[in-house]
Amino acid sequence: MNVEVCLTPALLPLYDIENSIVVVIDIFRATSSICYGIENGADAIIPVSHVEECAAYQVSGCLLAAERDGKVVEGFDFGNSPFSYVAEKVQGKTIVLTTTNGTHAIQLSRSAKQILIGSFFNLTALADYLASTSQNVLLVCAGWKNKFNLEDTIFAGAMVNKLRPAAYTPDDSSIAAEDLYLLAKDDLRGYLKKTSHSERLMKLGIEADISFCLNTDITTAIPVLDGDKLIKLK
Amino acid sequence: MNVEVCLTPALLPLYDIENSIVVVIDIFRATSSICYGIENGADAIIPVSHVEECAAYQVSGCLLAAERDGKVVEGFDFGNSPFSYVAEKVQGKTIVLTTTNGTHAIQLSRSAKQILIGSFFNLTALADYLASTSQNVLLVCAGWKNKFNLEDTIFAGAMVNKLRPAAYTPDDSSIAAEDLYLLAKDDLRGYLKKTSHSERLMKLGIEADISFCLNTDITTAIPVLDGDKLIKLK
Repeated sequence: MNVEVCLTPALLPLYDIENSIVVVIDIFRATSSICYGIENGADAIIPVSHVEECAAYQVSGCLLAAERDGKVVEGFDFGNSPFSYVAEKVQGKTIVLTTTNGTHAIQLSRSAKQILIGSFFNLTALADYLASTSQNVLLVCAGWKNKFNLEDTIFAGAMVNKLRPAAYTPDDSSIAAEDLYLLAKDDLRGYLKKTSHSERLMKLGIEADISFCLNTDITTAIPVLDGDKLIKLK
Repeated sequence: MNVEVCLTPALLPLYDIENSIVVVIDIFRATSSICYGIENGADAIIPVSHVEECAAYQVSGCLLAAERDGKVVEGFDFGNSPFSYVAEKVQGKTIVLTTTNGTHAIQLSRSAKQILIGSFFNLTALADYLASTSQNVLLVCAGWKNKFNLEDTIFAGAMVNKLRPAAYTPDDSSIAAEDLYLLAKDDLRGYLKKTSHSERLMKLGIEADISFCLNTDITTAIPVLDGDKLIKLK
């Protein structure tokens, strides 16, 4: 079995998506929020790219999540903070989540055997599931506007590190991601402070979100794509 | 000033090439051989993608360099080993060099302010020149068939590390590349042994080339693209 890291969605055409299970990674904050919401009993989360698409669900009884410049868009139920995805708010609900980079990565991965959602929240549960399938794994970093980012890469590295004992063969980007993770793991928050995206998010006043998204193994649910919805893997 | 690392040529459309000096990096072995050849007195080196293109220069008095499966193609003067680019062979000559990944990276960078060739051989000389220009720097890893590779990334990281004192602002991929370089620098050969490309090259029986390409600061010439030719920067 191979484990490969696709460092940005722009590189997806180079990979054998059809013969892999894809894990989509968008740590700050889409895939963290999705893992948290599914763990906390949301029936489904529908990822969309634009606020306008999200608004189209307004009549259907879904909760709508959309932000612009770090603030909840007027008329919407909440933004992209994982703190919004608590049981009291999401249990039994379908949520439409606006996330440009995450949705882009999911759309480009559609031919995969299975599309799963990963974050530090469900790291071990997801690693255990992946190892149990004996399938090739492609870890897809959503990145930032198709560019490389450190937080997604470092999570990919954490997953590579977890999969090593199951005898996966890593590619060069998996080796790099794992080494960056090993370098950062004792102080993830400190390490990621030097990244451009963290800086951008800090300016939006969401330091608490960033810090929360770096908690490891606080959930066990694995979100899986089923049609256009992310639901809990049974 | 910014320093950015483009991890593979496939990501080049995302960068502001026009406002940058581009450094093309293909450590095993094209850009190492080019630096060595220009240092050793070659008049010019013309990079081409395919053996057929290279053969087209056969009538023009150029030296032709092309390999297939690690062996010099019949009828050609030499292959891609840097050991071929010694003064006795290349002084005063124009060499046509077949290099798929390197040529690809150069072609896609053509709109840059200037295109330079980097390798461990000319690391410090090139860093000093770059810092003297006060221009944005885009380090372009040639990679392997548009995929990420470790050796080019680690050299990019070495360059980022050299440019730091000149107050360049790094992007996330520059931070990652620099950290990987710092991790690897005390034993570059050992570190790169675990990469897929090294393994592939080992099978070709060119371990000596690989080891030689990791020598730092043995040359000072900076190859620059002038039309279709790489010549020595005056």
